[in-house]
Amino acid sequence: MAKNKNAISPTRAEDYPQWYQQVVRAADLAENSDVRGCMVIKPWGYAIWELMQADLDRRFKETGHKNAYFPLFIPKSYLEKEAEHVEGFAKECAVVTHHRLEDDGEGGLKPAGELEEPLVVRPTSETIIGASFAKWVESYRDLPLLINQWANVVRWELRTRLFLRTAEFLWQEGHTAHATEAEAIEETQKMHGVYADFAESVMAMPVVKGAKPEHERFPGALDTLSIESMMQDKKALQAGTSHFLGQNFAKAQDISFVGQDEKQHHAWTTSWGVSTRLVGGLIMTHSDDDGLVLPPKLAPAHVVIMPITFKADDPDAVIAYCEKLATDLKATTYDGQPVRVELDARDLRGGEKTWGWVKKGVPIRLEIGPRDMNDDSVFMARRDQSPKDKQGVKRADFLANVADTLQDIQDTLLERAKTFRKENSRVINAKDKFENYFKGDKGGFALAHWNGDVEIAKKIQQDHAVTIRCIPQDGAIDDLLGGPNEPGKCIFTGEPSERRVVWAKSY
Amino acid sequence: MAKNKNAISPTRAEDYPQWYQQVVRAADLAENSDVRGCMVIKPWGYAIWELMQADLDRRFKETGHKNAYFPLFIPKSYLEKEAEHVEGFAKECAVVTHHRLEDDGEGGLKPAGELEEPLVVRPTSETIIGASFAKWVESYRDLPLLINQWANVVRWELRTRLFLRTAEFLWQEGHTAHATEAEAIEETQKMHGVYADFAESVMAMPVVKGAKPEHERFPGALDTLSIESMMQDKKALQAGTSHFLGQNFAKAQDISFVGQDEKQHHAWTTSWGVSTRLVGGLIMTHSDDDGLVLPPKLAPAHVVIMPITFKADDPDAVIAYCEKLATDLKATTYDGQPVRVELDARDLRGGEKTWGWVKKGVPIRLEIGPRDMNDDSVFMARRDQSPKDKQGVKRADFLANVADTLQDIQDTLLERAKTFRKENSRVINAKDKFENYFKGDKGGFALAHWNGDVEIAKKIQQDHAVTIRCIPQDGAIDDLLGGPNEPGKCIFTGEPSERRVVWAKSY
Repeated sequence: MAKNKNAISPTRAEDYPQWYQQVVRAADLAENSDVRGCMVIKPWGYAIWELMQADLDRRFKETGHKNAYFPLFIPKSYLEKEAEHVEGFAKECAVVTHHRLEDDGEGGLKPAGELEEPLVVRPTSETIIGASFAKWVESYRDLPLLINQWANVVRWELRTRLFLRTAEFLWQEGHTAHATEAEAIEETQKMHGVYADFAESVMAMPVVKGAKPEHERFPGALDTLSIESMMQDKKALQAGTSHFLGQNFAKAQDISFVGQDEKQHHAWTTSWGVSTRLVGGLIMTHSDDDGLVLPPKLAPAHVVIMPITFKADDPDAVIAYCEKLATDLKATTYDGQPVRVELDARDLRGGEKTWGWVKKGVPIRLEIGPRDMNDDSVFMARRDQSPKDKQGVKRADFLANVADTLQDIQDTLLERAKTFRKENSRVINAKDKFENYFKGDKGGFALAHWNGDVEIAKKIQQDHAVTIRCIPQDGAIDDLLGGPNEPGKCIFTGEPSERRVVWAKSY
Repeated sequence: MAKNKNAISPTRAEDYPQWYQQVVRAADLAENSDVRGCMVIKPWGYAIWELMQADLDRRFKETGHKNAYFPLFIPKSYLEKEAEHVEGFAKECAVVTHHRLEDDGEGGLKPAGELEEPLVVRPTSETIIGASFAKWVESYRDLPLLINQWANVVRWELRTRLFLRTAEFLWQEGHTAHATEAEAIEETQKMHGVYADFAESVMAMPVVKGAKPEHERFPGALDTLSIESMMQDKKALQAGTSHFLGQNFAKAQDISFVGQDEKQHHAWTTSWGVSTRLVGGLIMTHSDDDGLVLPPKLAPAHVVIMPITFKADDPDAVIAYCEKLATDLKATTYDGQPVRVELDARDLRGGEKTWGWVKKGVPIRLEIGPRDMNDDSVFMARRDQSPKDKQGVKRADFLANVADTLQDIQDTLLERAKTFRKENSRVINAKDKFENYFKGDKGGFALAHWNGDVEIAKKIQQDHAVTIRCIPQDGAIDDLLGGPNEPGKCIFTGEPSERRVVWAKSY
C-alpha cells in the first residue's frame, strides 16, 4: 500500500456506488451469486448480522414477543385475500409450480409434478401468519398475541445491490394481534421506537422517526412508521418499518375473538420488520475511503492483535506476549459482553496484514513487536482516526481503558454521522429553491412544508426523483431545524401545512 | 383432570403415533399448516429449537467454523453436476418456474414471467455452496475452509409428521473443504463426535455412533456417519449425519487449489447437518403419558412458579413472595446460564394450570400458597417424577440446591433412556430369531452379524421393514453387548463378519 493513497478505489467523491461495492468486497462481507439477485453473505458480513440479530432479539423478547416459525410457501389463494396486499407483491415474487424434476429425454431435467395450486415464496408473511392467528385467537384472553419470526424472504427485484436490495434477503418480521385499536397503535409505535433506539445506540446511525405518506405505505396498512437515515451520498435509506394494519388483514382472514362483552370482534393487527439491508446502511453510514468502519457494538472483533516478529530475537516470546494480552482482553467486558479479540499471527507482510484489518473496519488495531514487548506496551491505532495516527500505550493502561476507548469510538461515530446529517439538511421555503437543491447529483434532506396532497408528491417524484421520506414525529427533526417543527405553507401550493416533512433522494 | 388418568390420550401403549401427535399438541409445540407438508413451529417448540441452536452454534464456533449464508435457490444446472446427488433429490423438490403472478381474467391470478432456467428450492446446499468454494479457494493457504449455515430447506415428502418429517424444515448444514483426504476424514469424524456429545449431554438422548452401509449413504458421499437413537416405540431415529464427500463434489464443481508443491489439486470436502427433527427425537425419547418431558438444558423454563391465592387472606402477599422468589432464582445459574423462570399468575383453576405445565414438560413446578409462604417454603414437583410426588422444601434450601436438582433431572433422564435402550436391544445369532424378534409390532435394536452384502440388507428391508441403522464404531455398542464387538458370522449367509451391526425399524 503506497503512502498518501487510500485503500479503496474509487473514493466516495469519485464514484459513490462503485466505492460501496469495493468496500463490501475489500471487507469480504458478501458477493453476488450466480443465482439472479441472490447474494452470498460471507462470514465477516454474516457475523455483523448475527450481532444485530442478538441485540434486536433481546429487545423483542424484553418487550414481550416470542419467536415462532411459519411456512416458506404461501398458497396463491392466501395472497389474493387482501386486495392491496396482493397488488403490492404479485409483480415480483418467486412462484413454485412443480414438485419434482424428471428426465427431459435430452440428458437434462425438466420440471414435473405440477401443483394444483401454485405457491409463492413468501415476500412477507402477513397472510400465512394471519391464517395461524385466526386459529389461535378465540377469546380476548388470547390477546395480545405477540410473535416474531427470523426468516428469509424473496422479492423478485430487477435491480439489485448487495445488502441494500436483493431478491432474497434475511429479516425479522413481527406480527401482533390486539383487542383494541389503541393497543395496536401503541404496539406499532413501541416497535418503531425499538428500531430507532437500536439504530442510534447500537448502529451509531442517526434516524428520523416519522410516518410514511399515504401512497408510500405498506400494501394493506393504515399507517406505516419508518426510520430514515442519511447515507454519505446524502441519499436517504429506509432502515425499518412498523405497520398499523387496522382490521384489514383480520377481516380478510377472520382473526376474531369473543370480547369481555361476550360479542364477536375482529382483532387489530400490526407488523414490523428490519432486514439485512441494515448492514448496507451500516456500511454507508460510517465507512471511509480506506474501507469499512464498524461501530464497536457491531464489530465481530473489537481488537485485532498483530505480532510483529520479523526483527525479533525471540519471535515466540512476542507471540506469547500477544497471546497473554488476548487472554486478558477477553476477560474484560464491553457493553456487557467479553471483549472480542482476533490474534492475527499469519505469515504476511505487515502492511498487507494491517491494511486488511483497516478494510475490515476493526475498531482497535494493535501492532506488537519486540520493542513494545520489552516496554510492556502496545502500539495502538483506532479505526475512527487516520491510519497513520498510532500511539504507544502502556499495556496496563490499555487494558484498563479498553472499554472506554471502544465506547468513545462508538460515540464518535454517532456524533460524526449526526454532524454530517445536519450539514446536509436544509430548511427550504420555496419551490424554486427546492428544485435547485436537488438539481443534478446534489441535495440532502430538504425540510419543507407540504399540504398533504399525494398527487403533488407523486409529481415531484416523477420530475426530480425526490420523495417524502417521512412526516416526522414531534421532535424528530428539531435538531435539524434548530427548533420545533411549526405549521406553515406548502411550498408547492401555498396551502396550509401542519409541519415540515423530509424530502430526499433515496435507496 | 380426573385422578388416576393420564393427561395424554391415547397413551404410548395404546397408540404410539397418535400419542406423539397429542403430546406435540398438548405442549403447544407445532401444528400442521394449510401448506402441504409444511409445519408451523409455535413459540414453545421454537424456544426449544433456539436452545439447541445456541448450544450447537457455540460448539461449531469452538471447533473453528464460521457462519455464512447462501442462496435459497439452486439453478437446475448446478444440481445436474453431481450425478448421484441429483438422482437423490430430483424426485422431491420444489421448483420455481415463474417470477410473478398476473390477472388470469377470471378474478384470480396465474403464474407469469417464466424463468429461462428453473430454480430448485434448496433440499441441501452442497452444489450452491460448492460454487462459492470454487471461487474462494485458490491456494492451500485458503484451506481448510470451515463454514456453517443455519437455514430452511425443502424436500417434497409425501408422508409428513410434525418435526420428524416435513416438507420444509430448519437445519444447519456444515460445509468444509480441506487440502488432504486425512484432514477431511478427521473433520467428518470430529463433527460426528460433536453431534453425539450434544445428543447425550444436552438432549439426554443416548446415541449409537456408526457408519451407514453403502446403500444408505448421502447421495454423492463416500462415507456417511450417523448418530442413531432409540425412540420409546423401539424404533430408531437417525438424528444427525456427517458426510465425507471425497473429491466428488470438488471435481464436479472444480474446487481446486495450488498446493505447497505448486501443483493444482482438487480439495476434499465434507458436509454435516442436524435439523428440527431433533425436536421430534427429544419428544419421543423422554415424554410420558402425561405429556412432554424436557431435559433441563433444553427447557425454555426450568422452573414455573404458580401462586395459589384463592384461599389467601392477602393474595398480594403471596404474589409478592413468588415474585421475590423468581428474582432470586433468576440470579442463580444452571449450566452457566441464569435459571429460566416462568411466573404463572393467570386466573385459572389450579388443576388446569398445573396440568398445563406438566404437559409442557417444565422440569420443576412450584405451587405456593399462604401456608408455604408463612412457612418460608415452596411446594415442589419434579417432571421426572409422578405428578403426585410433591414435597415441601424450605425456600433457602430450594434456592441453594436448584442447580443440583436440575442436573439430577438431566442425569435421570439420560440414565432412563439408556436403560430403556439396553432393555430393548438384543444380541441375535440366527436368522429365524432375527425374523421372530421383529415380527408384527415387535423389536428394538438387533445386534447381529452381517457379511456386508448390500443386496441382503435390501432384501431384509423389503421383507421386514428393518434396516441396518449403522455399522457401529469401536466401543459404540459395548454397553448394549456387555463387551467388545467381536468378529463372527453373518446370520443370513454364514460368511465372516467383522463386527455386529445395529438393525432396527426406523423413522
